[in-house]
Amino acid sequence: MNYQSLTQEEAKREYGKLLAEYEAYKKEGLALDLSRGKPSAEQLRLGDGMLTILSGEDDCVSESGFDCRNYGQAYGLPEAKRFFSRFTGVPEEQIIVCGNSSLNIMYDAVVRCLLYGAGPGSRPWCREGKLKFLCPAPGYDRHFSVTESLGFELIPVDMTPTGPDMDAVEALVAADPAIKGIWCVPKYSNPTGVTYSEETVRRLASMKTAAPDFRIFWDNAYAIHAFDPAEDEPLADIFALAGQAGNEDRIFYFTSTSKIVFPGAGISMIAASAPNLALIKKTMAVQTIGHDKLNQLRHVRFFAEEGALARRMAEHGAIMKRKFTCLFEGLRRGLGDSGVATFTEPKGGYFSSMDVLPGCATRVFELCLAAGVRLTQVGATFPYGRDPEDKNLRLAPSFATDEEVSKASAVLACAAKMAALEGRI
Amino acid sequence: MNYQSLTQEEAKREYGKLLAEYEAYKKEGLALDLSRGKPSAEQLRLGDGMLTILSGEDDCVSESGFDCRNYGQAYGLPEAKRFFSRFTGVPEEQIIVCGNSSLNIMYDAVVRCLLYGAGPGSRPWCREGKLKFLCPAPGYDRHFSVTESLGFELIPVDMTPTGPDMDAVEALVAADPAIKGIWCVPKYSNPTGVTYSEETVRRLASMKTAAPDFRIFWDNAYAIHAFDPAEDEPLADIFALAGQAGNEDRIFYFTSTSKIVFPGAGISMIAASAPNLALIKKTMAVQTIGHDKLNQLRHVRFFAEEGALARRMAEHGAIMKRKFTCLFEGLRRGLGDSGVATFTEPKGGYFSSMDVLPGCATRVFELCLAAGVRLTQVGATFPYGRDPEDKNLRLAPSFATDEEVSKASAVLACAAKMAALEGRI
Repeated sequence: MNYQSLTQEEAKREYGKLLAEYEAYKKEGLALDLSRGKPSAEQLRLGDGMLTILSGEDDCVSESGFDCRNYGQAYGLPEAKRFFSRFTGVPEEQIIVCGNSSLNIMYDAVVRCLLYGAGPGSRPWCREGKLKFLCPAPGYDRHFSVTESLGFELIPVDMTPTGPDMDAVEALVAADPAIKGIWCVPKYSNPTGVTYSEETVRRLASMKTAAPDFRIFWDNAYAIHAFDPAEDEPLADIFALAGQAGNEDRIFYFTSTSKIVFPGAGISMIAASAPNLALIKKTMAVQTIGHDKLNQLRHVRFFAEEGALARRMAEHGAIMKRKFTCLFEGLRRGLGDSGVATFTEPKGGYFSSMDVLPGCATRVFELCLAAGVRLTQVGATFPYGRDPEDKNLRLAPSFATDEEVSKASAVLACAAKMAALEGRI
Repeated sequence: MNYQSLTQEEAKREYGKLLAEYEAYKKEGLALDLSRGKPSAEQLRLGDGMLTILSGEDDCVSESGFDCRNYGQAYGLPEAKRFFSRFTGVPEEQIIVCGNSSLNIMYDAVVRCLLYGAGPGSRPWCREGKLKFLCPAPGYDRHFSVTESLGFELIPVDMTPTGPDMDAVEALVAADPAIKGIWCVPKYSNPTGVTYSEETVRRLASMKTAAPDFRIFWDNAYAIHAFDPAEDEPLADIFALAGQAGNEDRIFYFTSTSKIVFPGAGISMIAASAPNLALIKKTMAVQTIGHDKLNQLRHVRFFAEEGALARRMAEHGAIMKRKFTCLFEGLRRGLGDSGVATFTEPKGGYFSSMDVLPGCATRVFELCLAAGVRLTQVGATFPYGRDPEDKNLRLAPSFATDEEVSKASAVLACAAKMAALEGRI
């Protein structure tokens, strides 16, 4: 039954039923967690063979004869660059291979812009007074935190089913030279699961910006993370499109193996145009003695065999598809035709984004928490942690078991319906 | 024969002999390298057992039950903190365990001071105009590069056999609030091999500084790197002494396992007072998703057995002692009583510092290079890469074989004598 059309009497009766259902959930003593995009034990196990793939001095030597146990190769092993190049399509010579946290290299990239400038001819942003950054929302909280922490004003832009609202983006960046960049998760976006359309990528790559040193932070964290390889959503080549528009310097491209092998012990990369890369290397040569090359070599060796990476990602995808199927089915079953919530059904990545009725998200979060179901903090997907309409919830079913996801989605649907009725009874 | 007392005729004759010796070296087609403090293959082999010490999901779990393959524990595993605490003497609760490059965490620490302030109550240094940093010289080139790159004026201070010239340091920091910090390698210092005396440490910890947020960057890279454990030179506890003087916030303490297991794939730590630590954690939580915990666990497990670390360092020390004995004997034999060079004979660490006659270092470097012996770039041990007297050479014998070190020191002694005579003949 659609909750819109209920009389007050019907609403009261319905709420009574929901309350009984909810109290029953509470009695189960649940401890379920859909708050964070962590791979499950089942997924981690897929990578265990990498742990012992290097065993001694004979197999720690790179293709070029370099002993990866020692100092050197500060910008990454050539074969590790090739590894990233193969699945991102970015040419090897544009890539620097880094440590285990791509978030860290994004933070460092912003700091570099602040202290040294964004590229040749750009002066340090910290000398420019007020600075702003575009934040497609709902989006990834940790992106927003980086620019908030570093003193930028965060400007929200709506996410649409084809990516950020490009009319709004174009108008903002054309008018305001203080807007220095935009955060993007272009494929299976966190949390809506959207893959940017080719038109969106083209417009980002070619739009006119008032800031001559505007930068797109292109965090392609889920580049090969389709649930089903046959249903993969292709992403347009941002470097190619930016190159056509003469804007290659606009792009900082990031990805990592955090969701390919081990989240806590992966390798990452930054890619940029040749002029940007020269500046990055110059600074990085001062900043670090180099990144962990043994771990780079582990990854290269683990995926050395033709097709090994694609097979592995298909295994990850199958596990994720199971979890998301449990989530979607549980929500559909629970919500019925109540019309009190919508949720995205991505084809890859780690998240679904749920909108409940405006003003209800905090209440739904609290009801879930009291019943032992932890969701991502409400507002986390918006700049400054504030959801202006208090309606968005991020759902991350990867870490829980199938049964836990099904149960959690039932509780969540019940809570969404309760919250929707509470204003009316 | 002492070169000071040679007549011009004798000098000419002597130079002729040296030239013949030098030409003979050149004919050998040598390719020797004393330029960098890299552990040798023999040392790296000592760590190979660590490569396979984690093998699957059962042994990737920390003491507290945390799966180190996954996200979490952003400030380091408790057992990794304990590992560092045991050999530094710094309390576990003051430690954050980081990634493979301690240089990187020092760079980050300076950046944090610039962008956020040095600690509670300190405003961002980048808002203060001119900034200066004390650089005991000869010292570690990569320290100097960090502060140079980040816009500090580098102020050299002489290194003495007990550490930096403390009369000079005290006078400088008392007079000038723009001086924000000092770089220190307090034990087996790079490159002189000096261990700071207790008086030096006490004066650093208690001196009056015009800048209220002055910081000592205490890079204890060679904390347990004596050649012979029986001859270890103890280092005073800087946190204890600073605490007594009410200056605990003054200390940023760093070390790493780069010279304990693998230089390219170690773990590192930063330690600080509680108020500083709170600020560091707050920023680090934004900057990174966390450091590689599998590598932390590898180190902990590899040294789990009582006394394992001390035994391993004794093995490293024995290898290093052999190399340094070859170096010192070769130099003594080659220099004889010519009086044209002095060199330090440290009891630990990775370097010796050699002073040739003023104005001769560049010529010695070039003569060596032309004969196939690479030394560290002249001037590298001074701020801005400029040795004001052109007399200092850093010697790093660790990577070469014993025979190579002996041969290189013979060439070096010959070159030092040639350069000394060239101005007189």
